[in-house]
Amino acid sequence: MRLLIVMGLLASLAFAPVARAEDGHDLWLRYRPVEAGAGYGVAALAPVAPTPTLTLARAELARGLTGLTGAPPTADAGARDGVILIGTPQSSPAIARLVLPLKAAGDEGYLIRTVKIDGKSATVIAANRDIGVLYGVYRYLALIQTRRPVDSLDLVSAPKVRLRMLNHWDNLDRTVERGYAGQSIWDWWKLPGYSADPRYVDYARANASIGINGTVLNNVNAKALSLTAPYIAKAAALADVFRPYGIKVYLSARFSAPIEIGGLKTADPRDPAVAAFWKAKADEIYTAIPDFGGFLVKANSEGQPGPQDYGASHADGANMLADALGPHGGVVIWRAFVYSHEQPDDRAKQGYSEFKPFDGQFRDNVVIQVKNGAIDFQPREPFHPLFGAMPKSNLGMEFQITKEYLGFATHLVYLGPLYEETLKSDTYAHGQGSTVARVIDGSLDGRKLTAMAGVANIGADRNWSGSQFDQANWYVFGRLAWDPEASSRDIAADWARMTFSNDQRFVTPVVDMMMASRETAVDYMTPLGLHHQMGRSHHYGPGPWVSGGERADWTSVYYAKAGPDGLGFDRTATGSNAVAQYAPPAAACFADLKCVDEKELLWFHHLPWDYRLKSGQTLWDGLVTHYSRGVAGVGEMQKTWAGLTPYVDAERHAQVADFLTIQHREAQWWRDASVAWFQSFAKRPLPAGEAAPPESLHYYESLSFPYAPGI
Amino acid sequence: MRLLIVMGLLASLAFAPVARAEDGHDLWLRYRPVEAGAGYGVAALAPVAPTPTLTLARAELARGLTGLTGAPPTADAGARDGVILIGTPQSSPAIARLVLPLKAAGDEGYLIRTVKIDGKSATVIAANRDIGVLYGVYRYLALIQTRRPVDSLDLVSAPKVRLRMLNHWDNLDRTVERGYAGQSIWDWWKLPGYSADPRYVDYARANASIGINGTVLNNVNAKALSLTAPYIAKAAALADVFRPYGIKVYLSARFSAPIEIGGLKTADPRDPAVAAFWKAKADEIYTAIPDFGGFLVKANSEGQPGPQDYGASHADGANMLADALGPHGGVVIWRAFVYSHEQPDDRAKQGYSEFKPFDGQFRDNVVIQVKNGAIDFQPREPFHPLFGAMPKSNLGMEFQITKEYLGFATHLVYLGPLYEETLKSDTYAHGQGSTVARVIDGSLDGRKLTAMAGVANIGADRNWSGSQFDQANWYVFGRLAWDPEASSRDIAADWARMTFSNDQRFVTPVVDMMMASRETAVDYMTPLGLHHQMGRSHHYGPGPWVSGGERADWTSVYYAKAGPDGLGFDRTATGSNAVAQYAPPAAACFADLKCVDEKELLWFHHLPWDYRLKSGQTLWDGLVTHYSRGVAGVGEMQKTWAGLTPYVDAERHAQVADFLTIQHREAQWWRDASVAWFQSFAKRPLPAGEAAPPESLHYYESLSFPYAPGI
Repeated sequence: MRLLIVMGLLASLAFAPVARAEDGHDLWLRYRPVEAGAGYGVAALAPVAPTPTLTLARAELARGLTGLTGAPPTADAGARDGVILIGTPQSSPAIARLVLPLKAAGDEGYLIRTVKIDGKSATVIAANRDIGVLYGVYRYLALIQTRRPVDSLDLVSAPKVRLRMLNHWDNLDRTVERGYAGQSIWDWWKLPGYSADPRYVDYARANASIGINGTVLNNVNAKALSLTAPYIAKAAALADVFRPYGIKVYLSARFSAPIEIGGLKTADPRDPAVAAFWKAKADEIYTAIPDFGGFLVKANSEGQPGPQDYGASHADGANMLADALGPHGGVVIWRAFVYSHEQPDDRAKQGYSEFKPFDGQFRDNVVIQVKNGAIDFQPREPFHPLFGAMPKSNLGMEFQITKEYLGFATHLVYLGPLYEETLKSDTYAHGQGSTVARVIDGSLDGRKLTAMAGVANIGADRNWSGSQFDQANWYVFGRLAWDPEASSRDIAADWARMTFSNDQRFVTPVVDMMMASRETAVDYMTPLGLHHQMGRSHHYGPGPWVSGGERADWTSVYYAKAGPDGLGFDRTATGSNAVAQYAPPAAACFADLKCVDEKELLWFHHLPWDYRLKSGQTLWDGLVTHYSRGVAGVGEMQKTWAGLTPYVDAERHAQVADFLTIQHREAQWWRDASVAWFQSFAKRPLPAGEAAPPESLHYYESLSFPYAPGI
Repeated sequence: MRLLIVMGLLASLAFAPVARAEDGHDLWLRYRPVEAGAGYGVAALAPVAPTPTLTLARAELARGLTGLTGAPPTADAGARDGVILIGTPQSSPAIARLVLPLKAAGDEGYLIRTVKIDGKSATVIAANRDIGVLYGVYRYLALIQTRRPVDSLDLVSAPKVRLRMLNHWDNLDRTVERGYAGQSIWDWWKLPGYSADPRYVDYARANASIGINGTVLNNVNAKALSLTAPYIAKAAALADVFRPYGIKVYLSARFSAPIEIGGLKTADPRDPAVAAFWKAKADEIYTAIPDFGGFLVKANSEGQPGPQDYGASHADGANMLADALGPHGGVVIWRAFVYSHEQPDDRAKQGYSEFKPFDGQFRDNVVIQVKNGAIDFQPREPFHPLFGAMPKSNLGMEFQITKEYLGFATHLVYLGPLYEETLKSDTYAHGQGSTVARVIDGSLDGRKLTAMAGVANIGADRNWSGSQFDQANWYVFGRLAWDPEASSRDIAADWARMTFSNDQRFVTPVVDMMMASRETAVDYMTPLGLHHQMGRSHHYGPGPWVSGGERADWTSVYYAKAGPDGLGFDRTATGSNAVAQYAPPAAACFADLKCVDEKELLWFHHLPWDYRLKSGQTLWDGLVTHYSRGVAGVGEMQKTWAGLTPYVDAERHAQVADFLTIQHREAQWWRDASVAWFQSFAKRPLPAGEAAPPESLHYYESLSFPYAPGI
């Protein structure tokens, strides 16, 4: 056979080697090589004392430097530039000399300092305890990852918050309530027999790299089963993996467990048999998990059992558990997210009303965990009135990292500005400057047991968080838990550099895009202080028409209060007077139309459709303008991202681009459905240039989403 | 500061570069470099016609060769050894000369031949249609992957079965019925907006590499919603991805869809409005998916709706759907897995009883899909009596790849021998040699529309199948669908070589281990023809005591019929006479204690505890011996695997080892619980040397598994 003719057609094209696509699994710990000539030389690592944490800290340093510099560090002792010494005063005589500067590092912080040895430059990463060394190693690597110079360092960093925690709303069947990143990463079925899944280690690495030191494994809507021996063994297997990374395991505890698994007839916290059950259960857990963190409890909230079922108080319940855990060093984290079926008052007021009276009555090892706002993780909420209002209690922050009300995984919304906005809010509890951040870090009232929790957005999806950019929300949460006064913009820049590229032509537009993304989402979802306008139950997409059903405060109409007369929830003295729960200067501003931020306008005020906004537009016109601005904002993000192909690998770029397309379509849907709905009350024409919704209101109302994730 | 002392302690250990761990995601398409000197040179690829399938076939060839040879193939035309030309008679004049030898390749097969051009060696991978070229490319790569010589080839291969399909029992909420590998890989929520997930392409590559050409996306326990416009659009997005890989998309159709989504009051197949609904639905689907495969239907089975709800027959229902799909070239695959609440007869008989009378009454584009055995995917079942009994109908095989009754993902059970045992079974329908394989490939009765389906074991787990070795079950299914007479041992060897190592010191023991693993599982679960002794509903672990509840034939006691008098289900003429459903020579053997294989003894016979087995042991002693042999068999696998560390990367080795540890513990549990249960009837001592179960029967009965996966 003669194939000559065909052969003659052969082109000279060569096949490029197949590049390993990036799927986002490496998070911000990619450790890709720095640009040639960036000036980061090959390092040498001094040996460390063989403790579990120091061993893995050194291994992580080696792994990171190998990736970043393209060559493994040596362990050679010869006097040369670039030796890195890590350890604690206990592990190393040289570091023992640093006791004084190490004071500022505290229990978990670190010191990184460039020193000279025989005229050679060396770096010390030191801490008082092993875990601080690991944190310092991640910081040192991050300096290179973000292209900071590392040849003349002298920095100390210590966390301002003691408990920096993830709350997993993960169920025992591996579904995740409000999870949009696939199944739970906890494969309970295969635990404890198979705990060697590398994913568990990578989870611990990622968390340690941003200073997270606690994880609540199971959903706050808890099953008592998670407190039985087989599940304690499963949790213990995970605790063993996480321990060297400084991460303690906690469990959500179902308050009625004494009945369900203890054979008792009651869970009354004042019943000695109940207290004995919990004491024995705590002993059992600590036998399996000596450094168990403690219990997170959702009690008397949304149908969960609690002390009020027996006429006892939150303090009775929390303190009883605290007494069981206290001897082991454990804590009780008691959620303040409560509102009652029987209580007809504004839901925004109920958490404060139920908890404020008990200030000072909780044990020292109890933390009251308060959501950032008084409703439920909306795109925007004013800070929760409990912040600053319980000076004699340990108040912890609960942020939501997963985007329950923010479009799930396919909407790009960087939550840093949301967190920062809350943390920088001034409670005026002790006058100006009494920020929420200072409540959380304990400095305002001298609290020692401080806490910040984030409801995790982590799942078994390859990229962990359901999207590339949702990784930034996990990252910024950890960074702000370490330092609640940090800048969300700076953190976004660090994340973007570590996750994608240090090229300034990438970093600047991406950080701008991220910083604007939250306001964009607020605009297309719930502008001007509107809240809770999402579809029923799944919280996906617009549902301003949601009404009726089990309870009024699970409906949209309850919150928007749209009518022919206008729009918004009057929380001033003429309404629910929720403003009175704030310190007087804050309350006065919220109540005052001249002072209140228009971003929170309809949260606090019911206003006529023709109310004049600062822009000069009427409320109606301005509302429509905000919705459309939100849609346009997503269009801007699409444009920005399309221009960034040179800086991002094809796989991640395509995924983000596709998700932005989905987001744009859905932003338009939000705008159209909301405009159609509110126009049915406002009965006014659209502002000039605004297109009418392409479908009827009936159409938008008819849409259903039977398999929406995360329920 | 002087760090000299510490520096002096530095060891000279260098850090090795971090090796990319293998997690099993690459399946059998790893394309790792061949050993130096193995004699596979750098290739050159001739250009191809730019059709989608030829383009990706060439890209796959380049990818594979790049990985295997360590260098990308060139596309240079110069006369040299090693040029590879791929294509069809239509795409290439040179291949057009191969029309004669290509006859044997048929529509989907291929020819691979070494040729000489100007004294240089070249390879042609040719086929009559593009898809055959892709199959040929995978075969060529597999030759190198398994270290066969490729310098003197002349082979033709064509599939013996026309429809080679996966059945996904995947639900719209991403749970997978009987799935043990995480969530469904179909992310319905993000489809059609995000169909660029590389996982979809990798799924298509893996399937195409073993010749699978159809996939039913959704569970046979179907929702009508999957036939609505939004879900058709989602299926179409997947079909677009799979099309160039030769994979057609099918959907499970809920028979009552005309009521649920069609606004009709009936789903009676004889109602013209119902027929019109399905015709319109077919038209709608084919508009979106021009090469849609057809419908899979589970009707009048386990609560699913069907034609019998209206007094119509299976033939009425199937033919009505066939008439809707026929004009588009679609097929109806109608499952024979039926058994009725109202029918008190032996469940093993019901499929035959219901379908045999309709032989010859089904349309040409209907396939009756029959499970390998008459009960339900047990560790061992005699072949289904329908095979050979419906010569005038298209009979397809349904195997289960997912291990519903075989320990889920953590038990190592290679299913090749199970499949092969069924396929090689002789139905005697037309005398000796009337094997099930010949029914399935159509040769026995001259059927053209042939089919083999496997219930997929695929999920979102990184390793696809829940364990490394479960990948082999996907692989062997595909290979046997291509050639039902192939050897499961040969296929195991190919898989082991491609998936792990070609080192004979690895291949020999691993293939031996795989080949023995199924009999080992039978031994510790259901020896000697016992069946359906698993825990209720989840089918996990031993549950021989399961009785009562909704229906007798969902219990264990129904099948084992243990009593003081003995054990086993009498299916001879003195019992249910199920044997009479087989052709006389087969029936006679099954009914004859001297002829029946002891492996199927208690399937067909109820025998006294002191019945003498061929070994000379009593039935009771032999039963216990089998259980213990199963436990010992897992111990052997552990030992074998422990010795293979030099040939397997650490991550995969550790996972398999941990799973074997779980399997060993559970095999012991199976043995102990089963022995405890049956001893309560046999009331005989254990054979000498056999240990008594360590726990009471009550203990084993009390175990519960509330979150067992896959339900």
